[in-house]
Amino acid sequence: MKDTKTYVEENKQRFIDELIELLKIPSISANSNYKDDMLKTAEAVKKSLLEAGCDVAEINETPGHPVVYGEKIIDPDLPTVLVYGHYDVQPPDPLDLWENPPFEPVIKETRIHPEGAIFARGACDDKGQMYMHVKALEYMTKNDKLPCNIKFMIEGEEEVGSEHLGWFIEHNKEKLKNDVILISDTGMIAKDTPSITTGLRGLSYMEVEVTGPNRDLHSGLYGGAVANPINILCKMIASLQDENNHITIPGFYDRVKEYSQEERAKMAEAPFDLKEYREKLNIDEVHGEEGYSTLERASIRPTLDVNGIWGGYTGEGAKTVLPSKAYAKISMRLVSDQDWKEISALFKDHFEKIAPKSVKVNVNTHHGGQAYVTPIDTLEYQAANDAYAEAFGKDPIPQHSGGSIPIVALFEEELKSKTILMGFGLDTDAIHSPNEHFGIWNYLKGIETIPLFYKHFTKLKQAEK
Amino acid sequence: MKDTKTYVEENKQRFIDELIELLKIPSISANSNYKDDMLKTAEAVKKSLLEAGCDVAEINETPGHPVVYGEKIIDPDLPTVLVYGHYDVQPPDPLDLWENPPFEPVIKETRIHPEGAIFARGACDDKGQMYMHVKALEYMTKNDKLPCNIKFMIEGEEEVGSEHLGWFIEHNKEKLKNDVILISDTGMIAKDTPSITTGLRGLSYMEVEVTGPNRDLHSGLYGGAVANPINILCKMIASLQDENNHITIPGFYDRVKEYSQEERAKMAEAPFDLKEYREKLNIDEVHGEEGYSTLERASIRPTLDVNGIWGGYTGEGAKTVLPSKAYAKISMRLVSDQDWKEISALFKDHFEKIAPKSVKVNVNTHHGGQAYVTPIDTLEYQAANDAYAEAFGKDPIPQHSGGSIPIVALFEEELKSKTILMGFGLDTDAIHSPNEHFGIWNYLKGIETIPLFYKHFTKLKQAEK
Repeated sequence: MKDTKTYVEENKQRFIDELIELLKIPSISANSNYKDDMLKTAEAVKKSLLEAGCDVAEINETPGHPVVYGEKIIDPDLPTVLVYGHYDVQPPDPLDLWENPPFEPVIKETRIHPEGAIFARGACDDKGQMYMHVKALEYMTKNDKLPCNIKFMIEGEEEVGSEHLGWFIEHNKEKLKNDVILISDTGMIAKDTPSITTGLRGLSYMEVEVTGPNRDLHSGLYGGAVANPINILCKMIASLQDENNHITIPGFYDRVKEYSQEERAKMAEAPFDLKEYREKLNIDEVHGEEGYSTLERASIRPTLDVNGIWGGYTGEGAKTVLPSKAYAKISMRLVSDQDWKEISALFKDHFEKIAPKSVKVNVNTHHGGQAYVTPIDTLEYQAANDAYAEAFGKDPIPQHSGGSIPIVALFEEELKSKTILMGFGLDTDAIHSPNEHFGIWNYLKGIETIPLFYKHFTKLKQAEK
Repeated sequence: MKDTKTYVEENKQRFIDELIELLKIPSISANSNYKDDMLKTAEAVKKSLLEAGCDVAEINETPGHPVVYGEKIIDPDLPTVLVYGHYDVQPPDPLDLWENPPFEPVIKETRIHPEGAIFARGACDDKGQMYMHVKALEYMTKNDKLPCNIKFMIEGEEEVGSEHLGWFIEHNKEKLKNDVILISDTGMIAKDTPSITTGLRGLSYMEVEVTGPNRDLHSGLYGGAVANPINILCKMIASLQDENNHITIPGFYDRVKEYSQEERAKMAEAPFDLKEYREKLNIDEVHGEEGYSTLERASIRPTLDVNGIWGGYTGEGAKTVLPSKAYAKISMRLVSDQDWKEISALFKDHFEKIAPKSVKVNVNTHHGGQAYVTPIDTLEYQAANDAYAEAFGKDPIPQHSGGSIPIVALFEEELKSKTILMGFGLDTDAIHSPNEHFGIWNYLKGIETIPLFYKHFTKLKQAEK
């Protein structure tokens, strides 16, 4: 019987090789051309669960991409941990900015990762962090260290809004019954500063289409006399934020939770170096909502970002066209207690209202999810805290993340259990960006820490009785 | 010796077939992949000039696409007409909106063209209108009707700003010596309303790049805290026009010629039906500068149009990215007496000034050209007027066009001769748009009218002596 540290040390090369194989499959859920690769990835995850010790592992069809389910039940009377993760990844574009092909993983050292980091799409988000849990299970089963029951629910639609996971949960409530949900799909403040994510932002993702004339026109013959849908779209988007970068959609802030000076002061204690932040992004100034710090803007405040815009002639050279249509993908990060369906409706309503009569607009909702905040005075949080303390030799800092895992709020609602977000990635891992990577140290540290959560959680649960 | 009407009637099928062959070659000057097709087109034009009766026809290399030159000198003491046209065409995209492939010409009837129209990129702009002059020469030589000398200068860079034509003219002033420049690259008001273009707008075509962070970022982790270059670009573009659609660039209007109430009243006499205009474009309202009519907005007033915009994720589905860069192609139509180089500099200066410190901007000038206005009390205009009167049975209406032929101003400057713009296209021909076409009636009417210009111009010139 080995302790986690030793076992991880002895098997690290295999752990890395196995993850690299998984990263080679381009499981891009947003693009229907990759349907087969999605299935291949699901199969690989299922196989790895069985090898790691699951008694049962299966691929569950949904109306969309399948969900991989696995379980090892050692005693129905013991507590059950449900691990959630996702095997799908973000589209890799823009491809030309990758230093290596996104699905041909390479290991490179970086300043922050002297032990090397695996560069590939999905390395951190979420294949790498999901696979930590598979290897943690392997450790626990191989070394007779599994103190409770364990279930896995690994989905393939997280990057496209978990469209059918709600459907899957509704149809499998009994099967998914658990005492706590464990997720590694967030980050930690720094390698020497473990943290537990206690807040997530919600999301409302919209797509708009602005139509001017019924065909592309010659900008000389019609320019100045007919509404140009690109100019109009720019004016409409510009008007969505005022000079203080406040969002102007009526009712947008109605439900936004305001934090007390004390709470804000506590958050401000998290280590943060604005100069280094700017230098890493090569920007002269940050930019955001008046009256809030950068950390607050990126965590407890809602946002409105254009994720994509296109229209007219975008090729080489010049084309003097007055286009018929212009498009934009616009997403809003939401905070508690905003309701994403309400915000999507407010956006659609407002965007249609501000459109001049000279154009027609079409507004559609892609997907969304609720914000999530978890209290830190719970048994579940305590167990996670103890696990980090044992692995890192210091207590983790509770932190709000700016990201969204739209499904987390639904878990509590449907499965009536708390969620613990144990993230091991770093903000600098470039998830969703070219050259995404995951530090080998972080990967192994995660595999080492996770079993400790099982130990402390089971202990605390038993003590409750 | 046949009159033009009879000769055109007897040869019309061949005239149509020859033009269709020319339209099959994709001579897209903006896209370097079509370099060979540009050469093939130049060769075809040269061949057609020799067949039509030129004594000399040659392909002149330039630093860019070659210029086709041809001439027939019957007597150095007789006046010389220089015909200008271009064999390059606009890029055909968006391809999916074409009813037939843009370089596979088809003939279809339309409400305005019951005799049929040729649908293909370049059918009207400018291969069709340029080829009218080649066939007019054929008529004059075959029927001993050429009353003066004729020269052709057919370039391949008009759609990309005639970048090297100035260079060519400077190096060939002697060869290009002439008494009048004749161009068919504009339109007429209606089939039953001949018109001569007496004004053209200038052009300044810019491309801008806005850079935020040095890489694409996760819009959850960074959204709200880091400038999004798309949001910023939209705000910057929106600010270029005020609520009255006045352009806000300081100094932009300083040199704009204001027309008297009388002049504006005269222009307003041109037949125009706003309701029909809106219906053809399927728009509920027109949109333009406060205080000016649609015809004025599209001819004697300057404009600012975004011809293309792109940035972030534009593929299928959703990607929650905060992009590193956003781009736009922005062109301004200019009127006399604006100077395109000055306006380009004003734009660059202003655009750089309004950029917030949170982004970096890069502004480049693609190309441009001066506006052009020609008086109607000249011998040259009189000759054109008489030609139309004889062919159409009514005097043509002088009109300002909103389009630009950047090179026209330069012709007068360098070659010291007047330019006559005899256009036979219609606004509805969809030049620069999908399904560009040229009415067969217009094509043949042009071939019939042009020789009459030579007749009247030579007569008036001789009378001068």
